Amino acid sequence: MTNKPPIDLSGGFACPIPKSEYENILLAHGSGGKLTHQLIEKMFLPQFKNKLLEPLHDGAVFTVGKQKFAFTTDSYVVHPIFFPGGNIGELAVNGTVNDLAMCGANPVYLSAGFIIEEGLPVDDLWKIVLSMQEAVKRAGIMLVTGDTKVVDRGKGDKIFINTSGIGIIENGVEISPKKIKVGDKIIVSGEIALHGIAIMSVREGIEFETEIKSDTAPLNKLVQKMLDAGNIHVLRDPTRGGVATTLNELAEQSKLGILIEEESVPIPDDVRGACEILGLDPLYIANEGKLLAFVSPKESAKVLSAMREHPLGKHSAIIGEVVDEHHGTVVMKSRIGGTRVVDMLTGEQLPRIC
Amino acid sequence: MTNKPPIDLSGGFACPIPKSEYENILLAHGSGGKLTHQLIEKMFLPQFKNKLLEPLHDGAVFTVGKQKFAFTTDSYVVHPIFFPGGNIGELAVNGTVNDLAMCGANPVYLSAGFIIEEGLPVDDLWKIVLSMQEAVKRAGIMLVTGDTKVVDRGKGDKIFINTSGIGIIENGVEISPKKIKVGDKIIVSGEIALHGIAIMSVREGIEFETEIKSDTAPLNKLVQKMLDAGNIHVLRDPTRGGVATTLNELAEQSKLGILIEEESVPIPDDVRGACEILGLDPLYIANEGKLLAFVSPKESAKVLSAMREHPLGKHSAIIGEVVDEHHGTVVMKSRIGGTRVVDMLTGEQLPRIC
Repeated sequence: MTNKPPIDLSGGFACPIPKSEYENILLAHGSGGKLTHQLIEKMFLPQFKNKLLEPLHDGAVFTVGKQKFAFTTDSYVVHPIFFPGGNIGELAVNGTVNDLAMCGANPVYLSAGFIIEEGLPVDDLWKIVLSMQEAVKRAGIMLVTGDTKVVDRGKGDKIFINTSGIGIIENGVEISPKKIKVGDKIIVSGEIALHGIAIMSVREGIEFETEIKSDTAPLNKLVQKMLDAGNIHVLRDPTRGGVATTLNELAEQSKLGILIEEESVPIPDDVRGACEILGLDPLYIANEGKLLAFVSPKESAKVLSAMREHPLGKHSAIIGEVVDEHHGTVVMKSRIGGTRVVDMLTGEQLPRIC
Repeated sequence: MTNKPPIDLSGGFACPIPKSEYENILLAHGSGGKLTHQLIEKMFLPQFKNKLLEPLHDGAVFTVGKQKFAFTTDSYVVHPIFFPGGNIGELAVNGTVNDLAMCGANPVYLSAGFIIEEGLPVDDLWKIVLSMQEAVKRAGIMLVTGDTKVVDRGKGDKIFINTSGIGIIENGVEISPKKIKVGDKIIVSGEIALHGIAIMSVREGIEFETEIKSDTAPLNKLVQKMLDAGNIHVLRDPTRGGVATTLNELAEQSKLGILIEEESVPIPDDVRGACEILGLDPLYIANEGKLLAFVSPKESAKVLSAMREHPLGKHSAIIGEVVDEHHGTVVMKSRIGGTRVVDMLTGEQLPRIC
């Protein structure tokens, strides 16, 4: 008897990540940063290569008949499962709703796949289910199919939740990094780094003067307002890896430069303080209820004011623009006038943040 | 600071599974048997109640414009991840392809969500990815979106994979337990219990005379042949909990009786021998490349012969029929003429089989 996989690994099928580099998967392969990108670009993309996967957006966009759809998936492994401002259940619903919204889609149907560790209190599962239903209602979608698996004690961590979702894209809406142009204004929909700091504070047992709560929220209705207000080039939710990683991805994909003004980035004082204590850079910290939008300079005022009318966008701000310099790179102008390159995250600043 | 979830659990929102019954989640809650059904019926269904979820099929069926779609999700936690006849990657692709096919849908798009335990050899991931791509090609579908998370060593088990899928249902196709009628013939597409015994043999380190291999395979093309041949009332793939559990679900949903003839059920001799050694009943053992079909007696010969023409259906057989007796119950007529009730699985015969 053998348990070798039925695949010939000789010849052209050698693993594309050489052993000398990484023999085993590291936490950083899941950080959303450089190692995640290496996995995707060297391993997943060449194998599964197809025109829908290639854009590497938050979701795939496909057409049936004349109707455009978006389809996305995300697994949530956040630790701890209950945190200030939310829990893994609503995070899983909001996260997938947001990924669909970032494709310009109106989210409609959601699936939920639970992987539960033996021994999870049934009461905890119940709290998670209740808050998922709250989130489903808030986003105005339907959870239509699911699956439950249980793994032995010590082979999981309380609960992991996968949500996949389907959204409908209205005629004429097209959100794509290909639409990014020099001069585009970059808008963030509110204060950043809340989710990551909320998680970190529980995990490290740190108490701040005010409780910092996760910003987990469904952005689909805010996006609808934005699409009604003007022509949006790109939407992204800066989750794992934060604003810095998302902007780096977009700089790379558009082959243009991105210039950010440090003093325009909305960071609450308590978050700034927490970041200083923890030695973290808020630009790299995960958000779960914020988006970045790239909009032409002509449309930016209109879009910004529409965003500020929505409760989830009231602290929206223009934080920078697309420039025809330092192509593929994100540069930040500091308060005192200097500039520095804002690189993509290499290691793992905050594992299991979502 | 508090990590209490923001939900009032007092009043009408008490957990519907009382502590006196099960305080913690057990492995059996993931078996596909009675405890899984209790979770679904007491906890998930009342909360997420909607007309698409309620049929509790292998997937949800929805309509956009005039086009019907199926949408399904499954997480795979099989242990070990490499087993005779396959690995977790192709199992994850085939499983979701099959769930869509069981809705009468033509599977088109797949998502993949990986939860990897830190320390998984990169080579193992590569083998899994290669075999997923083989499976994607064999089924004729596209993997269009994905997600990768990494959890700390000891907080996962090598790799878990969620796949969700979207399929297109042709005009006029309707597969539903509501269509089950007294007299319907029950067809199985081939020899049963192979997947479960293949997993069990590696896990227990048992060697049989011949290697028993998992039957993991995509059934969508077989289903297409069946739909072309005749009017199919119901399709189900008897995975977790095996043929017995699937038939019990259908007896319950249709409120009719199911009568199975023991000697008609195709069980290979080596599987039968292995089951005797392990003290297992093949009717409860998981299959990953077999289906059960309910077909009117008039159409059954046509459908059966179409099935036998396909390589994945060549051992198809009629194993029983729907009767107007013992409603909601599955009864088996033994070789020597006696009858016994075939109940739903209560405990966990084979945890983490898929």
